[in-house]
Amino acid sequence: MFAVIMAGGKGARFWPRSRERMPKHLLDILGERTIIRETVDRIRPLVPAEQTLIVTGRSHAAELIRQLPEIPPENILIEPVGRNTAPCIGLAALHILRRVPDAVMLVLPSDHRIGDEATYRKVLQAAAGAALQGDPLVTIGIRPTGPETGYGYIEQGDLFSDNGSDQIYRVRSMREKPPQEQAERFLAQGGFSWNSGMFVWKASTIIKAIGQFLPDLQQGLIEIREALGTDREEEVVGSIYAGLKSVSIDYGVMEKAKDVLVIPGAFDWSDLGSWDALWEVSKKDENGNAVRGEFIGIDAADSLIHSTGKLVALVGVKDLLVVETKDALLICRRGRSQDVRKIVETLEKSGLTSYL
Amino acid sequence: MFAVIMAGGKGARFWPRSRERMPKHLLDILGERTIIRETVDRIRPLVPAEQTLIVTGRSHAAELIRQLPEIPPENILIEPVGRNTAPCIGLAALHILRRVPDAVMLVLPSDHRIGDEATYRKVLQAAAGAALQGDPLVTIGIRPTGPETGYGYIEQGDLFSDNGSDQIYRVRSMREKPPQEQAERFLAQGGFSWNSGMFVWKASTIIKAIGQFLPDLQQGLIEIREALGTDREEEVVGSIYAGLKSVSIDYGVMEKAKDVLVIPGAFDWSDLGSWDALWEVSKKDENGNAVRGEFIGIDAADSLIHSTGKLVALVGVKDLLVVETKDALLICRRGRSQDVRKIVETLEKSGLTSYL
Repeated sequence: MFAVIMAGGKGARFWPRSRERMPKHLLDILGERTIIRETVDRIRPLVPAEQTLIVTGRSHAAELIRQLPEIPPENILIEPVGRNTAPCIGLAALHILRRVPDAVMLVLPSDHRIGDEATYRKVLQAAAGAALQGDPLVTIGIRPTGPETGYGYIEQGDLFSDNGSDQIYRVRSMREKPPQEQAERFLAQGGFSWNSGMFVWKASTIIKAIGQFLPDLQQGLIEIREALGTDREEEVVGSIYAGLKSVSIDYGVMEKAKDVLVIPGAFDWSDLGSWDALWEVSKKDENGNAVRGEFIGIDAADSLIHSTGKLVALVGVKDLLVVETKDALLICRRGRSQDVRKIVETLEKSGLTSYL
Repeated sequence: MFAVIMAGGKGARFWPRSRERMPKHLLDILGERTIIRETVDRIRPLVPAEQTLIVTGRSHAAELIRQLPEIPPENILIEPVGRNTAPCIGLAALHILRRVPDAVMLVLPSDHRIGDEATYRKVLQAAAGAALQGDPLVTIGIRPTGPETGYGYIEQGDLFSDNGSDQIYRVRSMREKPPQEQAERFLAQGGFSWNSGMFVWKASTIIKAIGQFLPDLQQGLIEIREALGTDREEEVVGSIYAGLKSVSIDYGVMEKAKDVLVIPGAFDWSDLGSWDALWEVSKKDENGNAVRGEFIGIDAADSLIHSTGKLVALVGVKDLLVVETKDALLICRRGRSQDVRKIVETLEKSGLTSYL
């Protein structure tokens, strides 16, 4: 079994901690370890370092290698430009096929938080077992906790298998980011999971599916495959990627494929999409404050205090997200952290590049 | 004419910028110059550096000399301990009497903001003229802008003199920090000024008044006077001060004296008592934000942003006081800055002395 960790994210939503050269997955915003370190550690009982591949951009490779010294450098796959998840997964599948034909690959985002790791690994194992029964594409579903409109929804159909602890279903349909009323209907109806962006399949299976639904990408991958391991590899990957269209695996493959399964994962999960999400998953003190760093609160409640150095003192405030780094300070009303990207846009427009 | 600038303040209300070793008057919170630098510059057209005395504590003397290089070091008078304003003024009066008997002294706080300096100086000059007509104690009143309960109120009586531009009145009564209803009555009634803490009198006049109303202090000053200029001066001042009671000139002398005058000062004035007061007197942008330092606001209004280094970004917030220093960050609801002292108290209790 191989794992492919997709680490191409930019993470502008965690500004000022996340920066162009230091996206979310390279940060320790959850605790002592960085998020990608946690991601890799979490699957270690299932997948050895030698079979863990990480796909990333050139500017983050050095920091990744520094943070993950046990991963062989040849397992760090560089995308010359980001082209969304379908090319990323295709590239990783080629590498795996070269090493072990018909290996199963776990496809995992680099920057999610998982609350219950044992359950998580059990689900991945069940998915890997299912992936070997024919050529299915297996998705890990997440039990919805509300009618969120920012996620994809997976509708389960007939039961595919049941080993007593994990039920695997055929997928009836997938629906990206539905409107609010539709999301509410899904929840009322039942039998829907959130699409976690985690997939399990044989490398050969996903290459076949790409051939069926994304023939342009298939053509590019064929050319890359011929160059892998030669001294032309970097040059060919560079020129092929430049010509690829950005397409997600969800839109490009999953929504069109017929043989798709889903395991509704019964573990705590967050995609950590924003500072608001970090407050949600963080431990709070008796006043509802999630605190990192030295803090004094006088009549201060329900806030995130995330300091990398300074003492933070709050007086008479609530529902704030406070993030302090060595050169910048963010103070955001809780519930408004989606607008942090507007700060990043303003910095870009103003040419204040040192803060990007 | 001499000026005595009382620079004994601790300024915990401007934490985290003010610190034990760096009280408010030594900071540049108003602009490019420090507050005491502005205070000294403001009276320079009236009083030369050689006749400007500054009374301060030992731990602030070096910084004062650094900030005010033109003031002769012998004009920096050290109080070994703070004993409120009456001993401070008495000590300064002794020094002045030794140099120029019957000189007029302006007694000025070190840490106020004055909006209209020309008017201010005109008022001081009129007060100095009045101080020479007999032995009156002259107070500078401030036109009240609301029924504040934190100030003293001066009730004017009969007109003493009128030079066409400045009216000087006899004082009928003085009332420290009245309750709200009384303050409202004063405003409705008219003829009341706030006590600015600025006084003008002959040095000999205030020494006589201290003799009349504060005999213990008079006794101490007599002993100090005998030691001034000798090698016993520091030792005597130290031992006398240790035994003095803390008493303000307002309570100890002004409220009891009969021959008191008031000039209602028609200039913009703030005692800069808190971060809230700083926001009040600061220039604001079109969103009501008073900004110092690099700032980006997304839907952010009516806030003070006071940064000494970092970029500050606010999203979806209003009515905040944000103060950033090299080791600490304060975020306080506007209107709550009197509670900043609770932060300082908490730091003291917690032994976090590096932040004091």
